Formats: sequence, C-alpha cells, structure tokens
Amino acid sequence: MSDSDKTRRQPKSNATVAKNAPTIILINPQLGENIGMAARAMLNNSLGYLRLVAPVHGWPNEHAIKPSAGAEVVLDAVQVFADTKHAVADLSHVYATTARNRDMTKRVLTARAAASEMRGVIEAGGKPGVIFGRESWGLSNDDVALADTLVTIPLNPAFSSLNLAQAVLLMGYEWFQSGDETEGVDVRIPKNTRLANKDELVNLFEHLEKELDNCGFLRPPEKRPTMVNNIRNMFQRANMTEQEVRTFRGIISGLVRRHERK
Amino acid sequence: MSDSDKTRRQPKSNATVAKNAPTIILINPQLGENIGMAARAMLNNSLGYLRLVAPVHGWPNEHAIKPSAGAEVVLDAVQVFADTKHAVADLSHVYATTARNRDMTKRVLTARAAASEMRGVIEAGGKPGVIFGRESWGLSNDDVALADTLVTIPLNPAFSSLNLAQAVLLMGYEWFQSGDETEGVDVRIPKNTRLANKDELVNLFEHLEKELDNCGFLRPPEKRPTMVNNIRNMFQRANMTEQEVRTFRGIISGLVRRHERK
Repeated sequence: MSDSDKTRRQPKSNATVAKNAPTIILINPQLGENIGMAARAMLNNSLGYLRLVAPVHGWPNEHAIKPSAGAEVVLDAVQVFADTKHAVADLSHVYATTARNRDMTKRVLTARAAASEMRGVIEAGGKPGVIFGRESWGLSNDDVALADTLVTIPLNPAFSSLNLAQAVLLMGYEWFQSGDETEGVDVRIPKNTRLANKDELVNLFEHLEKELDNCGFLRPPEKRPTMVNNIRNMFQRANMTEQEVRTFRGIISGLVRRHERK
Repeated sequence: MSDSDKTRRQPKSNATVAKNAPTIILINPQLGENIGMAARAMLNNSLGYLRLVAPVHGWPNEHAIKPSAGAEVVLDAVQVFADTKHAVADLSHVYATTARNRDMTKRVLTARAAASEMRGVIEAGGKPGVIFGRESWGLSNDDVALADTLVTIPLNPAFSSLNLAQAVLLMGYEWFQSGDETEGVDVRIPKNTRLANKDELVNLFEHLEKELDNCGFLRPPEKRPTMVNNIRNMFQRANMTEQEVRTFRGIISGLVRRHERK
C-alpha cells in the first residue's frame, strides 16, 4: 500500500484509465511536483483526463514526472488551456471544490454525493468535470461562477486545509468507490485450504471435550453445559480453516501425550 | 481547500483532536517528511493518537514539522515503541492496511467498513488501532499476524500504490465520514437573502408571460401552454433567491423599456 521514496523514479505504469470518467481541471497550478502527485492520485482511481489552466511554470514540466510514480499515461495526455472558460467549454456539468464559504447561491454537495451524481450525469450522456484552485489561494469567484455546483469535503473544521494532490485524491477516491463493488466485509483464506465445515468443527469440539472430561477440567457436572458452550463459541469466532482444525486436533493430541508420558 | 508550498512553515494549529478515536501506528517509517504529512492527514480528520515503531531516523525528527502544516498537536503527542507487539499492547482491535494478498486466514474489510466497525468498537468500550507498513515494503507477516483484520482500499488494481500519508489520509477520511452528519446535498445562499417562495416566482412568471404575449413571442396560441410550462420549468431549476427574482423582473422591465424607446 505504500511507497514514497521520492528519490526513486518509478517505471511507467501500464495501468489504463476509465473511458467514461470526469475530467480533472487544475487552475494555475504552481509546482510541477503537485501536478505529478495529482496525476498519481488520479490514476489510483482510474481517472485519466487532466487539464491545466495556465500552469505557472508552463507545460510540460519535468518536476511532475517522479512524483507521478509512473502515472505518465495521465501526464502524457494533459491538455493545457489559457483560461477556465475554455477549459470547461465542452463540459456539461462543472463542480468546484472549495472549503471557503462563498457569498453566492449554489448547490453544495459532499464529495461522496458529487461522485454519485457524476455517475448519473455520465449515464445520461453528460460530461462532468471538477475544478481545483491554485495551491495558495484556491478558486477565484470568477472560476466558481462557471461552476454548477460546489463540492466540499467534510473534514475537521479547525484544520480542513488539504494540499492539491490530497484534494484530488479524495475526490477521485469517492469517484472510484461510487463505481466499486468490493464487499465491505470478506474473509481471505490461503489458496490450498478452505474454511472448515461444521462437521469438522463438531468433531474437533467432541475431541477436545472428551479429553477435557478425561482430565477433569469440565467440572462440576452442573456447570459442564455452560462451559462447553462457552468454549464452542470461542472456537466458532475464530473462523478456522479445515487445515487449522487438523492442526488444533494435533495440538490436543500432543498435549495429552505429553501429559501421559509424565 | 489547497495549499502545499513546502517552503512555508505554517503556524501551529489550535485544532483539537477527538478523544474517542482510533490510534494510528506507523511501523518503521523512514522519512520525517512522511510522518509530518501523515500527522497533517490525521488532524484533517480529527485524529490525534500517533505511534511510531522504531522510526528509521529516530524521533523527534525536525523534517516532520513543515510537512505537518501546523499539525504539531499530533507530532507533540507521538509515542515511540521498539516493536509492534508493544505498540499494540493496550489495543483491543488491530487493523492492518495492506494491498498485497497474504497467505493467511483473515477477515478483510474495506476502509469504509473498517471505519464503521471502529465506531462500534469504541462505543462498546474497545480501543482500535490501525497499523501502516514501511514506505518501501509495507507490513511484515509478523506484523500482520498481530492484527485481527486486514483493511484494503479499493483502488485501480493496476495502480494501487499509495504513499504513506495518502493511505493514512484515506483511512482517516473514512473514519471522519463515518461520524459526520453533513447533508450530501445542500443549497448555499448569501447571508442577506433567502430562496424565493412560490408566490414570488409565480409573479415573475406572470410578469414575463404578459410581456411575451405583448411582443408576440408566445405564438401560435395552441403551443402557448407548452411554451409557458417549458419556460417555468427552466426557471424552477434555477432555485432563485428572492433577490434574484427582483433582479430578473428588473431585467424584463429594462428589456421592454429599451424596446419601447426604439
């Protein structure tokens, strides 16, 4: 999940970008490094359409390459525009990311709601884009006036400032999640085994309970049913594989043999 | 929303951290800058409990300060441990972030599901923590074996590598969202006005339609009802404030006067 040694240039990724996806527009971005990190955050989320409005140090910018961590498929396709009006000209829906309160009448969506809405916009044949302001002062009111909708990301109100790439990452992340079908909860198991079935588990329980009866652990008799259930519940929670059940039966036999040897 | 001029050291933030919140544990973090950026991402999401296991360049590390962007409340409270076992000793639930498939039997949650589960763990009096691996090679299997649950973040499968601070940001973001009650959709309006009510809107419609009848726009008569409804629907979508209704009535009067003057 992690690597960020900035001294290493990573090989170009072969990752492809989604065809039906929002355009990301950076207004007056200053540092090439931020553009590169934004491109990386985009490709993390399968976004590939990046537009720059009047980048301060021009384009292309070699400082963007290393921080993109191989996301050159995004950098190579960058489109540059002289102003915001031209950068959004072919879009049907423009979302403006902003933390500041604007003295304007606008719909405001969370990033999550905006991502979901953009899915609908694209399904209906529209072309959405998200504009991000310059690192140091965000979007101008003129830029915001070109947008249909504001996007704010709910964050600690006393410390809500994100750097440019992180804002792009969170918006892109919500976009990706809105189309992702990963199960929230899953159980991962090694290749050469499977979860134990109840027959195997019950055999383990009975094996253990027999040995615990033999050694006098399950006493007094009136408490035995509760003790047995507590132990069975503990094992149930462990979600054992059939291999782990066999291992555990070996552990029981091993402990008993050691005891018998004494 | 954005600033990332790394040459500027920002003033200490007064932002406070949430009391009932998960602990973030970075195993063998290498660069102070990454620790600082992780602290910033944490405070963005009101997280304040940061532990470091054997940081490669020791602790404190002055290179962490600037990238924290003022999140010194997090850096000042960092706890350092010699190994993972001691860093998680007082926790009840440990989540391990990992992209790699492990040959182990573990529950796997998305970051979103893990955030929601951690809320429940804390409500039940538990103490959850999330461990993140070293920048270059992630978590060791020994670290993962100390965890109850794996967390994976659904991302572009061909380009899923995040830097350390970004992984912390996404986990923290999901934590914050799981406790946040911001409406997904809202309408923001300037202070000294309010949304127009239907009476004001209908008066505007009737004013406009009277003038459009006068100038012969709403013809032929059999098409008038459809034309009127289309125009009314367009104005309804604009969610006008009462001030904007007044402005628009002024526009109609102005256009009519100009026409009459000619």
